[in-house]
Amino acid sequence: MSLIEPIVLKGFRDSLPEQEIPKKKIMRALEDEFQSFGFVPIDTPALEYTSVLLGKGGGETDKQIFHFTDNGGREVALRFDLTVPFARFLAAHSSLLALPFKRYHINKVWRGENPQKGRYREFIQCDFDIVGADNAESDFEILSLMDASFRMLQVGGYEFHVAHRGLFNAFLDFNGIRDKSIDILRCVDKLRKIGEEAVLEQLSQITGSRETAGKILEYIDRPENESFEEGIARLEGLAGGENEASRRLREILALIRACGIEEHFMLDPSITRGLDYYTGIVYETFLTECPQIGSVCSGGRYNELASLYTKEHLPGVGSSIGLDRLLAALEELKSPLLADSASADLVILHRPGEEALAMKSAAALRARGVKVDVYLTPEKKAKQQYDYAARNRIQFSLSFTAEGAYSLKNLETREVTVTSSVDDICSQLAR
Amino acid sequence: MSLIEPIVLKGFRDSLPEQEIPKKKIMRALEDEFQSFGFVPIDTPALEYTSVLLGKGGGETDKQIFHFTDNGGREVALRFDLTVPFARFLAAHSSLLALPFKRYHINKVWRGENPQKGRYREFIQCDFDIVGADNAESDFEILSLMDASFRMLQVGGYEFHVAHRGLFNAFLDFNGIRDKSIDILRCVDKLRKIGEEAVLEQLSQITGSRETAGKILEYIDRPENESFEEGIARLEGLAGGENEASRRLREILALIRACGIEEHFMLDPSITRGLDYYTGIVYETFLTECPQIGSVCSGGRYNELASLYTKEHLPGVGSSIGLDRLLAALEELKSPLLADSASADLVILHRPGEEALAMKSAAALRARGVKVDVYLTPEKKAKQQYDYAARNRIQFSLSFTAEGAYSLKNLETREVTVTSSVDDICSQLAR
Repeated sequence: MSLIEPIVLKGFRDSLPEQEIPKKKIMRALEDEFQSFGFVPIDTPALEYTSVLLGKGGGETDKQIFHFTDNGGREVALRFDLTVPFARFLAAHSSLLALPFKRYHINKVWRGENPQKGRYREFIQCDFDIVGADNAESDFEILSLMDASFRMLQVGGYEFHVAHRGLFNAFLDFNGIRDKSIDILRCVDKLRKIGEEAVLEQLSQITGSRETAGKILEYIDRPENESFEEGIARLEGLAGGENEASRRLREILALIRACGIEEHFMLDPSITRGLDYYTGIVYETFLTECPQIGSVCSGGRYNELASLYTKEHLPGVGSSIGLDRLLAALEELKSPLLADSASADLVILHRPGEEALAMKSAAALRARGVKVDVYLTPEKKAKQQYDYAARNRIQFSLSFTAEGAYSLKNLETREVTVTSSVDDICSQLAR
Repeated sequence: MSLIEPIVLKGFRDSLPEQEIPKKKIMRALEDEFQSFGFVPIDTPALEYTSVLLGKGGGETDKQIFHFTDNGGREVALRFDLTVPFARFLAAHSSLLALPFKRYHINKVWRGENPQKGRYREFIQCDFDIVGADNAESDFEILSLMDASFRMLQVGGYEFHVAHRGLFNAFLDFNGIRDKSIDILRCVDKLRKIGEEAVLEQLSQITGSRETAGKILEYIDRPENESFEEGIARLEGLAGGENEASRRLREILALIRACGIEEHFMLDPSITRGLDYYTGIVYETFLTECPQIGSVCSGGRYNELASLYTKEHLPGVGSSIGLDRLLAALEELKSPLLADSASADLVILHRPGEEALAMKSAAALRARGVKVDVYLTPEKKAKQQYDYAARNRIQFSLSFTAEGAYSLKNLETREVTVTSSVDDICSQLAR
């Protein structure tokens, strides 16, 4: 019989233990952080009705999603993000949820994009949102949770770039170009990519005036060292004075200051976030020591997200962490969080005939909280056994002396301790 | 614009926080247990080439899987279990893995079966396997990990029913009916469902002899109170004497005894596990206080799992927990593990104007490890605020006195503590 080639689809990949161990560790750490803010987990099906996921939309998304007709003749699709399913979820279950509803959702999504470096057709999103409150306090709480998460992740410096879509709209209104907002947003979003001159050119064409285009750039362009507070005042000036949006920004800033986390926040009007559905604050997150990786966490306020599915008004604010990108950054920054990817604290290397002794010792150590791997082919040569420990990044081996005592070996220092006490072993490991 | 109905597909379901919180808790507890045995996590794509997943197979599975042609013209399918992808994974990466390889994999699989009570088209499997060793020690280690897991799960009594496919084959050989083994296995598997008389009838037809059918039933039928050891001797008698399989069972039993976990193991020759690929021990797990739920964890030894994809000989032994079934049992048994499904330790109920105070206090408490939810619409009536706490199953509320002190209220006992010390609050919560 001919063998089947064990290949995976283009844009998909296996996750080996050396990738999966850190990924799980980070997901767990993030979940702990979300939970410490009272956020609760939900999940939704990977597969949904295509019409429910695509809504009115279609267009570009259509080609990017995996969709098909199932055996029952239903048009179905794999979810391409966690936002649309969340909107559908809210509409379906709002009567069961206590508002404001704070949820997180970490799971896979699928997109048929052409795979590029670091871009895959299957990837994990990590979303957290607050629904049912439209105030500075909930805007702040999302930002505060982002701050707590990045502090926990030990990524070195990080900075949240915050803007307000409403303030930008007020500026557009003031300059009589609100009707062109979508084109302007899309253009401004390309600033980092195509540069100031090209954007100015395109904006002149969109607005029909180079002067107006210049004003847009003036709005977008944050003077170096401008404080958050100065920024609000400058943007108010360009938008015809104080308004609801600028007041909201001041309230958020006051909470940021009260909690002493101001150093990580910057008002950056160039952050617009292309997506139509944002209505309030928008933000992106950059790592000081890893700027080339781009934003690792972004989002904003949307006040009509679930309106495709329900007449109920459900204002929300939320954020999404690109987990793969974050992991790449953590690796590059050698985050201490990823330092230990060992499969166990120690491996028991015993001889044939010592199976019962090995298993009993393993049970005794596990009962004391030690992660114990028993090497299960004791007939193999010592070299293979040590190679096994090394490949699994295990620092200690335990074997048995002729008298039945424990011999604990630090495989880095080659230091050996002989003892007959399990507690001795635990304290050696803890050093 | 007309609204889109927020429905999910037949056989699929959303997981609300009250389902997702316990599910995550159990998955995490199981992962901790797996890790304490040195098992490492892996993941594989949800979507694979149909030809890779189905192998030579097809047949019944074919109709049960979600498969389609993707935008690139590839025939693809959603994985229907975690075993086939694992076999493919082993063949693809065996040179990178240190053998014996101990892995666990907890993730979703999809099957197009007709939904029934408790059966869904999307569900989570939880598999753990050891590959690269064919000996009693590795058989034992899987059983030992199962025992540690069920002890940890606090499900009350549990029993592992163990049999050996090789011993059954020896019995079939001895009686000259080995060529009918697949039909016999399928039939015997129905014993619990259709009863002894019907099975006897079918076995007579398969073997062409009522006497032989009776012998099969004699093999399968464990006398009440038969010990594991007595059972091995009885089956040897029916199979023509000691053989490799019965020796293996004795070695496994010796390790079970050495580790003092014998009370949870029973030799039960009626366990055959229909699947062809098992070659050694097979087992199922029953909960004493929840027998109607059926087996919650089962598996066995397979020595040729990856042979569709590679010529390398990769013997394995493994087990799979039906997570949904297990969760149903834990709920029914009111497992203490699921007792606390609160979204937070306390909720801060403050008045408008106290936002900064609320957020600062929340940060101070979180820094001490307390899970703090801030109620984000302080303008709502007290009744709504308490209702929010109740719906999120939060036991304590924190508010502020006119003097700015903390007022901690136990929402069950209505006891109130006024203090200005954050540490005081922590110790109140810990009581």
